[in-house]
Formats: sequence, structure tokens, C-alpha cells
Amino acid sequence: MIPDTVLAELRAALGDRLSTTDAERAVHGRNEAYHPEARPDAVAWPETTGEVSRILRACHGAGVPVTAYGAASSLEGQHLAVRGGLCLDMSRMGRLLSVRAEDLCCTVQPGLTRKRLNEELRATGLFFPVDPGADASLGGMAATRASGTTAVRYGTIRDNVLALEVVLADGTVIRTGSAARKSSTGYDLTHLMIGSEGTLGIITELTLRLHGVPEAVTAATCRFPDVASAVDCVILTIQSGLPVARIELLDQNMVRGFNLHSDAGLPELPHLFLEFHGTAAGVAEQADGFAAIAKEFGAEGMAFATRTEDRSALWAMRHDAHYASLALGGNRRIWATDVCVPISRLAEAVVWAQDEAARLGLTSTIVGHVGDGNFHCGVSLSPEDRDEVARVHDFTHRLAEQALALGGTISGEHGIGLGKRDMMAAEHGTALGAMRAIKAALDPKGILNPGKLLPEEA
Amino acid sequence: MIPDTVLAELRAALGDRLSTTDAERAVHGRNEAYHPEARPDAVAWPETTGEVSRILRACHGAGVPVTAYGAASSLEGQHLAVRGGLCLDMSRMGRLLSVRAEDLCCTVQPGLTRKRLNEELRATGLFFPVDPGADASLGGMAATRASGTTAVRYGTIRDNVLALEVVLADGTVIRTGSAARKSSTGYDLTHLMIGSEGTLGIITELTLRLHGVPEAVTAATCRFPDVASAVDCVILTIQSGLPVARIELLDQNMVRGFNLHSDAGLPELPHLFLEFHGTAAGVAEQADGFAAIAKEFGAEGMAFATRTEDRSALWAMRHDAHYASLALGGNRRIWATDVCVPISRLAEAVVWAQDEAARLGLTSTIVGHVGDGNFHCGVSLSPEDRDEVARVHDFTHRLAEQALALGGTISGEHGIGLGKRDMMAAEHGTALGAMRAIKAALDPKGILNPGKLLPEEA
Repeated sequence: MIPDTVLAELRAALGDRLSTTDAERAVHGRNEAYHPEARPDAVAWPETTGEVSRILRACHGAGVPVTAYGAASSLEGQHLAVRGGLCLDMSRMGRLLSVRAEDLCCTVQPGLTRKRLNEELRATGLFFPVDPGADASLGGMAATRASGTTAVRYGTIRDNVLALEVVLADGTVIRTGSAARKSSTGYDLTHLMIGSEGTLGIITELTLRLHGVPEAVTAATCRFPDVASAVDCVILTIQSGLPVARIELLDQNMVRGFNLHSDAGLPELPHLFLEFHGTAAGVAEQADGFAAIAKEFGAEGMAFATRTEDRSALWAMRHDAHYASLALGGNRRIWATDVCVPISRLAEAVVWAQDEAARLGLTSTIVGHVGDGNFHCGVSLSPEDRDEVARVHDFTHRLAEQALALGGTISGEHGIGLGKRDMMAAEHGTALGAMRAIKAALDPKGILNPGKLLPEEA
Repeated sequence: MIPDTVLAELRAALGDRLSTTDAERAVHGRNEAYHPEARPDAVAWPETTGEVSRILRACHGAGVPVTAYGAASSLEGQHLAVRGGLCLDMSRMGRLLSVRAEDLCCTVQPGLTRKRLNEELRATGLFFPVDPGADASLGGMAATRASGTTAVRYGTIRDNVLALEVVLADGTVIRTGSAARKSSTGYDLTHLMIGSEGTLGIITELTLRLHGVPEAVTAATCRFPDVASAVDCVILTIQSGLPVARIELLDQNMVRGFNLHSDAGLPELPHLFLEFHGTAAGVAEQADGFAAIAKEFGAEGMAFATRTEDRSALWAMRHDAHYASLALGGNRRIWATDVCVPISRLAEAVVWAQDEAARLGLTSTIVGHVGDGNFHCGVSLSPEDRDEVARVHDFTHRLAEQALALGGTISGEHGIGLGKRDMMAAEHGTALGAMRAIKAALDPKGILNPGKLLPEEA
């Protein structure tokens, strides 16, 4: 519940950019993943940093929860207002503020989506590479430490944010970083905010690194007799210093899903989908180098695509993994989960996941950003089948435990949100105490996205 | 002063690895830069994480300051025990613990130096790229957020640490990160510790990213009619996506210093020194591409070096910049300072620094990691000449202000330590409050490296 005095103050500041209607509360209470609906008590659409600051000051005074909302594409319920309070919809702060081509950077508002940004950059010869699949908002991508298919070459969002403007819980506006490439002056608040899932502050501006659009791009696909051969090929490719821009593993189930969903006509074996970026000569050299390595591991059906439309079709298919997983599971629902392990343990982790899903009688696809050791399982389920839901929950939990046992992490990019809070202690142990101390220092009243990321104290 | 009870406890734990002799206190109270001597009350040489934890528990109980000491190569006095207390000399924790070639990473103790690490890695075909010039300890490099000549290609230490083990002020041992390439699980404590200059915790173990030794390496040198031409050449090189491994600017004074110190015989004009890493064909393509760009900006005397001994000689000369600066200034002392600006403002910043040094009657060299927008001034001074010392102080202060005015940062890699605390508020404004809150949360008694990084509260 939001006290009437606070609602009145917000309404005075925002006018009809504050809503308490059932319709808006319902829209903002949904998510793409498996989490139950959770409605905020009100939704605000700020247009300026000053408004965000004023809103937070009001909510801080009264102890009202505030949860930021971007494109709602997060997969662990990060944007759900599970304790009610105010939903801060950032969609009206969605402008590209400036491009500094010489400095290879731009400054954006948090509600701008990555695809819109790249459309607006088209004339500059520059692009923003981080690509989580969904057309996520850039503020949300930073808040959830997103990555995706190109991280193996260009890094995750963590590597591509130079500076932030953030409003703290009490309304204080801070700036972290600058357009300079590096700095050694004080605590790295930029990286502390990235991945904090809106629990330490609200991002109101981002300065992002841009990259030159490569002169030449070639995509490649090939298949392997088994997952281990495909992964071993990836390891040697990375070790050889071959600067692949994308290297994605699709297991045999995922390929079957693509055949069902996109009529892809692919042999139902593990595949790698790749992309090479560089000069024309460089790309040709990379493609030859990869083909030689792949052959050693029994790759067949090596095919290259250089025309834009062919490459776009390939990656559109890849980005439809969610729908292909749905098709494979008879168009029910998908519980998407991810883990990340040291690449030397990747084959073991993928095979373990396949076997475990089969053991539990579950239908699951695997698709992975394997250059990073990161992979996703898309497990089909019927929400009304309680036993199946329990088995999927068991699977995700055990997969995360297995990732830890292999020296990895319970999430490479989906994050914690609501879904994996109960495993934070298993991953972080005593470091959880340091995280709690930081949360208490920056948000002593606990108004920022309560119920997320950090588990309840015992 | 350290209470006798604490000294007795430490002596019981460490035996003769605790010293209170004047000789050891004096050795550990010195620095390579311009800061006055500051002796600790005692020096401890821990050998295990457990010992570091025990030491911190004892010091925390009694409120004894603890300052970590690596290779003492920091340039802003980061390792000086300005409030006395205990100096934690990490040199006995200097082992390479493990190499995971398949995962392109290794785990080291903090006292290992970067050159020793690369010697130990020689047989693996892998190397650790971060190169600040001095043979710094890896723990110190992480604590001070070091970078150097190769950051333009491989990133700074920030980009090359996967995980840390850290002992907090009260002795709690935490682990941040893992050997997995990425993670989205909780606050980024790894990056919070990197650059915290020993004020938030003591690093006791690091997992570092390694890179494959490139198949081919070519170095290049050329000269330009003026600094602006050289910098404009760098900007276009970076914008073109040419993956230079090193790109260093030397101003005309620096070149004069090399001629005096190394008998380099170079025309006294601004120079760029570069290095290209890749396949043989890739390196040749990069070198050709760079030569074409450089020609547009009036470069002359383009020379390439592919033999290891020729390249080593070139970079040895570059790494002797300190001594060359000394030679230029009549072998007095050098006050080294650095700033970093957006690359579009770099020419302006460098010319400003040259003019300002001349205006103040100072002799200064400039050498820069210009791909990052980062440059160093080596200003000659006689410590007994109070007026000159005041002018050098004025110069460094005004240079830092100028960097901020150009949208940059007061230090790209030397850090804050003692030297630039009074400028932290100018750079960070309200964000300083968030830094203080984090310091108070993790080190409530303020025992970790007191008197550094954060300015005194007004």
C-alpha cells in the first residue's frame, strides 16, 4: 500500500503519468517467464532524472517499495513488484542523448531498447554489440548484467558501460565514470550498479561503448557427432585466439525444435552456429582456421553465409529458440534457466543437463553461448501439472548445484531476481554478508526492489 | 602504535615473520615517487590466507591500521603506512598456484609479480598481458587498478581478473567470482575490490585471465610534425577497428630524453611506438593499414621491427621513460602524474600540459597510452627547491582539473593514494557519499589503509 499523502505528492508531480488503474497494474505485474503475477500498487512514468529523484525522495520518506520496469524481458522476475509499492516504468526516458563517434561512445536514457539504439546509430558506422536476444531496454540490461551471443568477442554489458547516472534510494543523484576509457579513482560504483537488479539504485543515464561496424561478416554452421566433440572444437578455437564474434551450441533437441518451428531441415545432431567479424581477408582467414579445427573434431556439413539476408535468417532462427523450444514441447510453457561453467567443464555440464532432464522425464532444449561456457535450458511444462512443475524446479536447482560443483556460477546472464535467491548462499558463502552490508549502506530502508537478489536473512 | 598485546599475539602466530626493527620499518616506509617517508610500526610477512585472517582479526579488535605492501612500485604512495600500524608485506605469498590452460586462466597469490608470472607461463603458450612497466605484484596491480601499454588491446587489470579471495577488515575470508567467464549473480565484489587500494579488504588470491601468445608480433615506430597529428592518427586507427596491441605517444621532450638516456638518435619530434599481434597475415594487414592512416597525418620515418630482440630493445627504451625523464631534467627527481580523457580531447589535453609546464618553468616529458586517452607527465624537480616543488604541485593539480574540464578523470592508472585525495570531490561529487557509505559498511573501524583514497570528511 502506498500512503495517500505519497500518492498525492506523486500525482502533483506527474499528473496523468501516475496510474493506479487495475489495467496498468496488471500489465506491469506480468512476466515472460514462469513467475506468478505480482502487481504494483501504482505505476509512474518519469520523464527526467529530476522526477526520478523526487519520486524516490517521496517513497524513501514513507518506506514505499520502488521497482524499476524496462522492457519486462527479464527471465527471473526482476521487474515484478512482489512487495507492491511503486512500479517505475522507464519507457518515457527512452532517448539517445548523444553520440560521440570519435570517442566510440554514446549516452542514452535507460528506457531506450538495444534495437532502437542500433537503428539510430545506423548512419554512424558504429554499433552497440550486446545482444541478449530480446529487445531489452539498456537500463534493464545494465541492471541485470545482460550478455548474449556476441559476448565472446565484445564482452557483456559489464564491459560496454563506461559511466552511469544513478538515483540512490534517498533521491541523491550520482554519476559514476566518464567518457574516458579507464580510471583509477575510487570505488568502481559503475560495476557495483551493473547487475544489482535495481536493488541499489535506479539507472537514469548510461554512457555506452560503441564499436565500428565490421567491414566483413561471415556466418558459419556445422554439425558434430556429439556434444563433447562440438565443445572440444569450441575450446580449441578459443585457445587458438581465433576472434570469433559468435559461437553458439545447439543440442540435438534444440535442432529438432528448429526443424519443427522453422522447418529448418537440419540433421538432428549438435550444431555450432558462428559468426566472424573483421576485414575481408581477416574473416576469410578466421573461417579457414575454424574449418580446419572443426574438421579435427568430426564436423560435417560446414556451410558459410556472407549475404546479409542469409545471416539474418540464421540469427533470426537462433533468436527464436524460445519458440522452437515451445514447439518441441507441444506448445505448452517454457521455463528458461541458465548456468555458466569454466569452458573445460562445459561438455560435462551439457551432457549432465541432458541426462538429468531425461531422468526426470522432462523435455528440454539446450542452446549456449559456449565461448563463454554459458548455456540455457528451455524446459517445457504445463503450469497446471504440479508434479511436472516440481520436477522442473528440481531440475533447475540441481543444474545450478552442478554448475557450482564444476566451479561455475548459478547464472551466466539471467540473474537472480526471484528465481535463484535460495541459491545465493551456496554460491557466495561469506561474501553474502558483504553484499548485505552494501545493501544496508546504500538502501537502509530496503525500498529498492525488495524481495529480489538477496535471500531473506535466516 | 600497536598495543603490546597485539604484538605478542602476532609474534606468537608469525614468529620471526614479524619485525619491529628500524631497518625493516624504514625499508617499508619508502616509495619510488615524491611522497615523504612513512614508517609502519611493524612489518608482518604472512604466508597463508589463514594468517592474514588471523592478523586482521587481531588488528581489528584493537583498531590497529593495516596497510598492504606488494612491490612498492605504486606512484601515489598507496603502500605507505601514514597512520603507522602494521605493514602487511605480501612477498611470501608469491606463488603461481595453478594454471588452467583450457580455461585460459590461472590462480596466483598476490605477491607474485607480473614478470615472474609470465616467466612461469612460458611453456604454456599463454601470457598475462597487463604491463604497467614496473614489475609490480599482481595483488598490488589489482588493488590499484593498474593498466599500461597493452590495455588498448587486452584491457586493464579490471578486465583480466575473474575472481578474488579477499580478507575483510574483521578477518572474514570471502571469495568473489569463479573461473567461469561471466556471472549475473549478485553484487560485483570483484570489481569493487579492484582499485580500492587496500581500503576495503586484503587480496589473498587472484584468478587471472590469460591470452594465447600471438603467432606473430610486429612493432612499428614513426614520427609526426606535431602532437595533434599524432593523436588524430591514433583516433582514426582506433575508429577503424584496427586491433593495435600497443600504441604509445612520446612527445618531443620525451624523445629528447631517450636520446640523452639511451642514445636513441631519434629526430626530436612526437613519435608513436606501436605493436601489432595476430597471425602473420593479420599482422601484415594491420601494419599496412596503420601505415596508410599514418601517412595521411604526415608521418615520416616509418620503421617496423619483427625480430624479438629489436622489439625488446624498443619496449625496454619505452619502459625506461622514467630514467629518460630524469636525464632530461639533469638527473634530479621525477614527479610522475597521469590523467585520462576522452580520446577526442587528447590532443588538446597534451598540448595544454606542454604549454602549462613551460609557463610554470618546469621540465616535463609526456608519454601516453594514447589508445586509451591516458598520458603521463614526468616532471623534474629538486626536492629542496620549495618554490619548484610548489610549482610542480600546482601543475599536477591544474592538469587534473583540466582533465575533468575535458570530461575525463584525474587518474587513468596511478590512482589516488595520498596524492590526489583532495581532488576526489571534484571528480565524484555526490558519488563520494556512496563511496564513504561502502567504506563504513565494510571497514567500520577504518583500519584498512587509513588516510588513502577517500578525503577526510569536512
